[in-house]
Amino acid sequence: MKLARIGAAGCEVPVVQDGDGGWRSLRPVTEDIDGAFLSRGLADVRAALTDGRLGDVIEPGRFGPPVARPGKIVCIGLNYRDHAAETRAEIPAEPVVFLKTAQTMVGAQDTVLIPRRSTRTDWEVELAVVVGAEARYLDCPADSARCIAGYAISNDVSEREFQKDRGGTWDKGKNCDTFNPMGPWLVSADAVPDPQALRLRLSVNGERRQDGTTSDMIFAVDHLIWYVSQFMVLEPGDVINTGTPAGVAMGMPDRPYLRAGDVVELEIDGLGRQRQQIGQA
Amino acid sequence: MKLARIGAAGCEVPVVQDGDGGWRSLRPVTEDIDGAFLSRGLADVRAALTDGRLGDVIEPGRFGPPVARPGKIVCIGLNYRDHAAETRAEIPAEPVVFLKTAQTMVGAQDTVLIPRRSTRTDWEVELAVVVGAEARYLDCPADSARCIAGYAISNDVSEREFQKDRGGTWDKGKNCDTFNPMGPWLVSADAVPDPQALRLRLSVNGERRQDGTTSDMIFAVDHLIWYVSQFMVLEPGDVINTGTPAGVAMGMPDRPYLRAGDVVELEIDGLGRQRQQIGQA
Repeated sequence: MKLARIGAAGCEVPVVQDGDGGWRSLRPVTEDIDGAFLSRGLADVRAALTDGRLGDVIEPGRFGPPVARPGKIVCIGLNYRDHAAETRAEIPAEPVVFLKTAQTMVGAQDTVLIPRRSTRTDWEVELAVVVGAEARYLDCPADSARCIAGYAISNDVSEREFQKDRGGTWDKGKNCDTFNPMGPWLVSADAVPDPQALRLRLSVNGERRQDGTTSDMIFAVDHLIWYVSQFMVLEPGDVINTGTPAGVAMGMPDRPYLRAGDVVELEIDGLGRQRQQIGQA
Repeated sequence: MKLARIGAAGCEVPVVQDGDGGWRSLRPVTEDIDGAFLSRGLADVRAALTDGRLGDVIEPGRFGPPVARPGKIVCIGLNYRDHAAETRAEIPAEPVVFLKTAQTMVGAQDTVLIPRRSTRTDWEVELAVVVGAEARYLDCPADSARCIAGYAISNDVSEREFQKDRGGTWDKGKNCDTFNPMGPWLVSADAVPDPQALRLRLSVNGERRQDGTTSDMIFAVDHLIWYVSQFMVLEPGDVINTGTPAGVAMGMPDRPYLRAGDVVELEIDGLGRQRQQIGQA
């Protein structure tokens, strides 16, 4: 099942894809796709699809982020061996965790802005996990599956100078405006039989830059949710960006960082495609 | 002017202190003290106080966090020379920035939970700044004042092993459940003539541990807001924890980290007092 939010920023209508491929308003079931909605599970959406209790067909214009107002975006760093190697980082002994605020989220086709005074704005295609049930001190990774509502694509846009050379933690280079395109839609967990067998690809101006598979993650999705739940409470609607494979600008000999006018395209098997034009803040 | 939120967690009523020291409901003016309310400025609250258009007197039971659902808590690390020295860190050349999620916020008198498997839970009294207007690429520190709604006390509770010895950024040791008591109230900016002349104190079980002044900040409040606005957008309702003076457990010879049953008390001139019992998660 694919859920999305269609409309202008701040005015998105929650929708679900019906059997004919059309997008039908979820307003008879919920005001929005948020933590409260996801925590109730998706049974009532399924029932509404079956019973024809959905709202009008919504024309697919702009897709906003498929989750409204997450409490947080928890990000995992260096979670693919080849990416750790290209950034000359050691393979982490346990997951590297940092945070993005929900305010960085934009839609899958929205413009990404290079921050002022930035010279090293970079891309990162990532599998995003959307939390559907509270996770607090889970006993073991096997308990994680019940906390997952679904999956989406995230572009974990990063400013490498702000992240690494400006003192302190990575957060300075991860939280610039528009730095987390997400979507276009949220695919429910039941429709992704194996989240560790998805190919991820990213290109810039038509040139392939990243081409990896989630089977190469150092820490798998179920391990990550279990692990993070030992340090903070994961709440319905929260998002986890699970790390990026090799192929970022920082890891290339010529460091081809993003410039205004560039076009970035991302794709993950079964989760759709993103396309962002790069602008200047 | 003092604004607060009184009531059980999740059911707080927004209030303002009237001329007689009583707490009067703000519901005739706003549903809650959040970013949308703060962005309108406090003129209508002042007018309501003058015109007697406020709601009922609310008995001061529990004080919740004085701001509902902030988008983020931006924290400044190592912003007092004596604290940098006690942690054997260098004086930072520019502000050290990290993030706490709003989900860590609790009221000023709420229980703080030591995380499971924690042995080094520590305290940090801090001046919290509440944002009242969007700050995006401010031109200079002098532009910061118009973005400040008011001030409060934060306890930036920190788990030092999670923060420093578990790989990655500080966020792992800063975002545990209940790790940001805030309040008891928000004092409007006009009632704090000089935020750089406030004494901050913290004691554990009656023993004074921190006793500093905001005049010792390395980077003043106006500098911090200008600086942070170059990296991320500050939105109304966001909170900035501006750093802690010396006297944390990590900096003491005997490392007296918190234990269940301890009582922590915090105070900042003009901003009230906090008192937290320490529990175990």
